[in-house]
Amino acid sequence: MSTVFDHPWLGGLLGDDEAAAIWSPQRQLTHMLAFEAAFTRSLGQVGSVPANIANNLADQIADFQVDLDDLRSGSATDGLPVPALVSQLRKMAGENSKAVHTGATSQDVIDTALALTLIEFNSMLRNRLTDAVSAITSLEKKFGTQTLIGRTRMQAALPITVSDRLRTWSDPLQNHLQRLEQIRPRVELLQLGGAVGDRAAFSTHATDVAADMAADLGLGNPETSWHATRDGLADYANLLSLISGSIGKIGQDICLMAQQGIGEISMATGGGSSAMPHKQNPILAELLVTLARYNATQLSGMHHALVHEQERSGTAWTLEWMILPAMARATARSLSALCDVCAQVNHIGAATHQ
Amino acid sequence: MSTVFDHPWLGGLLGDDEAAAIWSPQRQLTHMLAFEAAFTRSLGQVGSVPANIANNLADQIADFQVDLDDLRSGSATDGLPVPALVSQLRKMAGENSKAVHTGATSQDVIDTALALTLIEFNSMLRNRLTDAVSAITSLEKKFGTQTLIGRTRMQAALPITVSDRLRTWSDPLQNHLQRLEQIRPRVELLQLGGAVGDRAAFSTHATDVAADMAADLGLGNPETSWHATRDGLADYANLLSLISGSIGKIGQDICLMAQQGIGEISMATGGGSSAMPHKQNPILAELLVTLARYNATQLSGMHHALVHEQERSGTAWTLEWMILPAMARATARSLSALCDVCAQVNHIGAATHQ
Amino acid sequence: MSTVFDHPWLGGLLGDDEAAAIWSPQRQLTHMLAFEAAFTRSLGQVGSVPANIANNLADQIADFQVDLDDLRSGSATDGLPVPALVSQLRKMAGENSKAVHTGATSQDVIDTALALTLIEFNSMLRNRLTDAVSAITSLEKKFGTQTLIGRTRMQAALPITVSDRLRTWSDPLQNHLQRLEQIRPRVELLQLGGAVGDRAAFSTHATDVAADMAADLGLGNPETSWHATRDGLADYANLLSLISGSIGKIGQDICLMAQQGIGEISMATGGGSSAMPHKQNPILAELLVTLARYNATQLSGMHHALVHEQERSGTAWTLEWMILPAMARATARSLSALCDVCAQVNHIGAATHQ
Amino acid sequence: MSTVFDHPWLGGLLGDDEAAAIWSPQRQLTHMLAFEAAFTRSLGQVGSVPANIANNLADQIADFQVDLDDLRSGSATDGLPVPALVSQLRKMAGENSKAVHTGATSQDVIDTALALTLIEFNSMLRNRLTDAVSAITSLEKKFGTQTLIGRTRMQAALPITVSDRLRTWSDPLQNHLQRLEQIRPRVELLQLGGAVGDRAAFSTHATDVAADMAADLGLGNPETSWHATRDGLADYANLLSLISGSIGKIGQDICLMAQQGIGEISMATGGGSSAMPHKQNPILAELLVTLARYNATQLSGMHHALVHEQERSGTAWTLEWMILPAMARATARSLSALCDVCAQVNHIGAATHQ
Repeated sequence: MSTVFDHPWLGGLLGDDEAAAIWSPQRQLTHMLAFEAAFTRSLGQVGSVPANIANNLADQIADFQVDLDDLRSGSATDGLPVPALVSQLRKMAGENSKAVHTGATSQDVIDTALALTLIEFNSMLRNRLTDAVSAITSLEKKFGTQTLIGRTRMQAALPITVSDRLRTWSDPLQNHLQRLEQIRPRVELLQLGGAVGDRAAFSTHATDVAADMAADLGLGNPETSWHATRDGLADYANLLSLISGSIGKIGQDICLMAQQGIGEISMATGGGSSAMPHKQNPILAELLVTLARYNATQLSGMHHALVHEQERSGTAWTLEWMILPAMARATARSLSALCDVCAQVNHIGAATHQ
Repeated sequence: MSTVFDHPWLGGLLGDDEAAAIWSPQRQLTHMLAFEAAFTRSLGQVGSVPANIANNLADQIADFQVDLDDLRSGSATDGLPVPALVSQLRKMAGENSKAVHTGATSQDVIDTALALTLIEFNSMLRNRLTDAVSAITSLEKKFGTQTLIGRTRMQAALPITVSDRLRTWSDPLQNHLQRLEQIRPRVELLQLGGAVGDRAAFSTHATDVAADMAADLGLGNPETSWHATRDGLADYANLLSLISGSIGKIGQDICLMAQQGIGEISMATGGGSSAMPHKQNPILAELLVTLARYNATQLSGMHHALVHEQERSGTAWTLEWMILPAMARATARSLSALCDVCAQVNHIGAATHQ
Repeated sequence: MSTVFDHPWLGGLLGDDEAAAIWSPQRQLTHMLAFEAAFTRSLGQVGSVPANIANNLADQIADFQVDLDDLRSGSATDGLPVPALVSQLRKMAGENSKAVHTGATSQDVIDTALALTLIEFNSMLRNRLTDAVSAITSLEKKFGTQTLIGRTRMQAALPITVSDRLRTWSDPLQNHLQRLEQIRPRVELLQLGGAVGDRAAFSTHATDVAADMAADLGLGNPETSWHATRDGLADYANLLSLISGSIGKIGQDICLMAQQGIGEISMATGGGSSAMPHKQNPILAELLVTLARYNATQLSGMHHALVHEQERSGTAWTLEWMILPAMARATARSLSALCDVCAQVNHIGAATHQ
Repeated sequence: MSTVFDHPWLGGLLGDDEAAAIWSPQRQLTHMLAFEAAFTRSLGQVGSVPANIANNLADQIADFQVDLDDLRSGSATDGLPVPALVSQLRKMAGENSKAVHTGATSQDVIDTALALTLIEFNSMLRNRLTDAVSAITSLEKKFGTQTLIGRTRMQAALPITVSDRLRTWSDPLQNHLQRLEQIRPRVELLQLGGAVGDRAAFSTHATDVAADMAADLGLGNPETSWHATRDGLADYANLLSLISGSIGKIGQDICLMAQQGIGEISMATGGGSSAMPHKQNPILAELLVTLARYNATQLSGMHHALVHEQERSGTAWTLEWMILPAMARATARSLSALCDVCAQVNHIGAATHQ
């Protein structure tokens, strides 16, 4: 059960189809080919290669059918799939093989592919954060004027309104929308550095190739390569964990409100128990807490990966691969489960019998 | 690329077939069915159900073909697969449906299945730790008397022998073998608690059922259920991270020894670069560091899961599912990659040109 | 040696006087009294209390000599110092005791005091980030055109310039200055919520009291209280760890450059060894890595504290107290040690003998 | 407020006098001098130095009044206090200065001093774990037969006895006592390696010096130095976090039991609120959860410190100093607060009005 998001049955709980597609190997491969195609095309633009040859080749690259087994054994040997991929592409390119990848490096391909993934995922995040705010607003419209016992240090304190509580649920999500807009220009960035990050192989064309590729791929074009400066990604991981963490607070609140003897929330459905079929478990609310703690744990690893030595750290970079996609998928599920939970709510308000 | 161990190409670097099999959903399902079979069989032993009926049914359970789609949708609803699984088994059992799972609970099934996984994985760990020690001993035999510059705070200090360095590689692995033996009796344990962990549903048969099942499954039989006391698993996660962490030290040493200008180790093979085909990268040594940092990060989450409220925390328990199997697979890969690295070593010793 | 920043001798390595003063208990107490004074003064402004009485009392509060022993025993009992502090202040206020703290709550005092600390600390961070960028720029002026071997995966790759390497040191610091400006309005915020965060006790005066206090204290005035929405603080902790993490990369680079056999950097001074007096250890460069890993570890705890249940979580809030100030001090030391390291550099560039 | 355990008022909540004394700089210094005294004495034993001179000098070392300011500035320069300390001791020794520390290294002093701290702390842990088990047993005697609603996934499930719940509190503590006994021989160890860990400077006397010192100091005498193999310490940190984590579960249970509407526990005293004087907050129960999450967070850093490169990593070693003592103090407070909480319990059992 090691890969919970894609697990045959746990995936039913933890998986999210839209996020799975965005982060799928297939989509990642599409982005890698998009990099190589844009790169070859730009060589035509700057005149390193005749434009028609470059454009034809770029089209072939974009549609190339990759030999995945070869990619796998190449990754085992090289630590990443790009040397094997480039070798396949060059074989396909035949006499034009020099118009494939020449002067670029593996990290350019993989980091840029990641940036393309982030464009798609950030759109999804924005939509889901907006949906989540709406779902809470909808609860507020229905139950906002109800009374609730405000609780501090897990003790009943003084009455508040349901609106007061719900504001502590939606305020952070609004903040996250702002954070997302601020962070996008720092991560949706072309990576183009070449072997050691200085674009030396492109000589006088470096600026033009980068500008052309960035425009082609819809990415920002930073002045220098970010091959060894990973603050953008660690910061991004922080945003993911802020989102799931804020939602974890909502989940914890709901679990507490749903307790017998408290009865401040009632849900249309809950999970079943194999021992007590009558029992209604707040499965999704619990899941929100789990996902918050999962991401809070992972975030630390992304910050350790900031210690990225010299011009490329295989160690730190591979650690990013192990952690960031899982955080993204946990965040996506947190947002979808939050909307599901909100849709299940039948009532919020102090139990009348108390 | 969210599930790196099973990823189509990154799996070539990070995956480990033996560990993948031990932790596979298929194997987990086999263990879950083994629990249910042993449980039904024990009901026959204690006389709750006629023995021949129980035994026949147990055999059918053990060989049952599970409907995985149903398990997936059940997990989405119930937060775990057991209610759906039990429902399938009871349908199969027909008039004997009460001899299936009655008095047990989901956690009994899943935790016991995990304990069965750990038996298998612990055997693998013991073998691999032993192999790893042998691999280092073999290096010592070849190169142990060579001189090396001892380095402290990353500065050349005084000469040592290669044996001195290698002892810092193998000593911890020897310790881990001892730790593994000490920890096995604390985690290879039957879980049988029923709905709230007190085995109340089994009445006077509780002790006999537990003893019978433990013997049948080859597990220890603790006096009480460990449903809410997860120190065994957090402690186990610690052992996994100790192993990968000790190996991470080896990986870091090798990366440092392999630097140009240092040249204290030479390897038969290394990873290729898409930009510099002549370059030999210490891919596997780097991987050892990555896996160490990955597990060091994850371990924290397993300790947060110790805050397991009341008789069952869906929150904390699900967090274990997300983290522990991934740690195990990282540890397995760390051990296999260490052996691979050792096998690639051509020479260890101070560079002669210095 | 549990409190390393203030430790009698380790403080010489890890401590930072300016950060120590900003985060000192004495300064924190000053901020708490500033809250209470501003609060009392605002009661005069809105007419709840005669203005001259309020103003006089506010002046007395601001200068009040607190009984620290009483604060300590109060904290032991109440989990925080505010009830004891308020009791002292009310005793001092005598017949005007109702003009002290009435309607406010402990969290208002402590969180607002923290916001005041952050104003001071953020100014320091901005200055130090600017200084650090200058220090690197100064290295670039001296050594930027020198050649260095670009190193990827810890292997020599192709030549780069020292400028290329230094840009990977300063680029993130520039990004952090931008992040700091974006985050300040989200954390330099008045907290005023009263018992359960809804400002109910202030009735119609709530908006005026808050506006008045925020202006008085130089803080932002959020529409609602942030008592249970801690995303600002978790995000802030992320910024601290981004800073120390980026600097950790610099430290790791310097340690690697300073190795015998590599010799790409030379420092004016280094640490001594008790066993090898001739040895020069890159103490401060190592420290940069240590502080990076320290903060990367701590950050996780601040994100777990996002699961802040209901209107106030004693659990999550106290966790913030244990972690955030230590992170701030580690970050401050990271920045000062970076400047110290830069000042010690005698030369950067590929060793001529190679 | 960065050093919470020794903070003027928060120390009232988080501090623990006995642990503070064991981990105090003063006590650490005593242990460092004990190392140097034992070392000098052993030089007399093996005949490197006339025995009477060695013994006299050892007595002077043990009682030496250290110049702390010098130690502080030495730590700033050297990254640790030992070179400065040795220099002071040698000045005192005059013509016998070669009988001080010669052949040993800073790490020998600091790590052995830590091992001496652990002896003391482990005794305290054993006593406190035993006390904690007794405190829970005492609750069981009073309330064990009472009924409680077993709760799973935060929902009422089926009745259990108070004994059933309490067993999930005390079982792990019993396990920890066993773990403590198993771990002591792996951490209460002499460190004696000299400059690069190989004891080369002691030549043929190495074994005798080590045996003699270990006997003198009451420490285990490992065959080789553990200067670069930190699995003992990471494993020890795990034990600390297991203890506080198991206690965190108790704290969380108590917070949940103490809720209005649940009323399963009543306490003699609780913390006051500055806004609601009538309120009784479960301060200490919350603290147990905070300390659990604190240690769960810190543990990760101790495992990152396993990647301890070559013969001594200043980076990883300093990280241990920043984390381990704080974990120990949090664990000590967790145990004392647990006993305090147990002593405050007036009643446990299902609320009669339900």
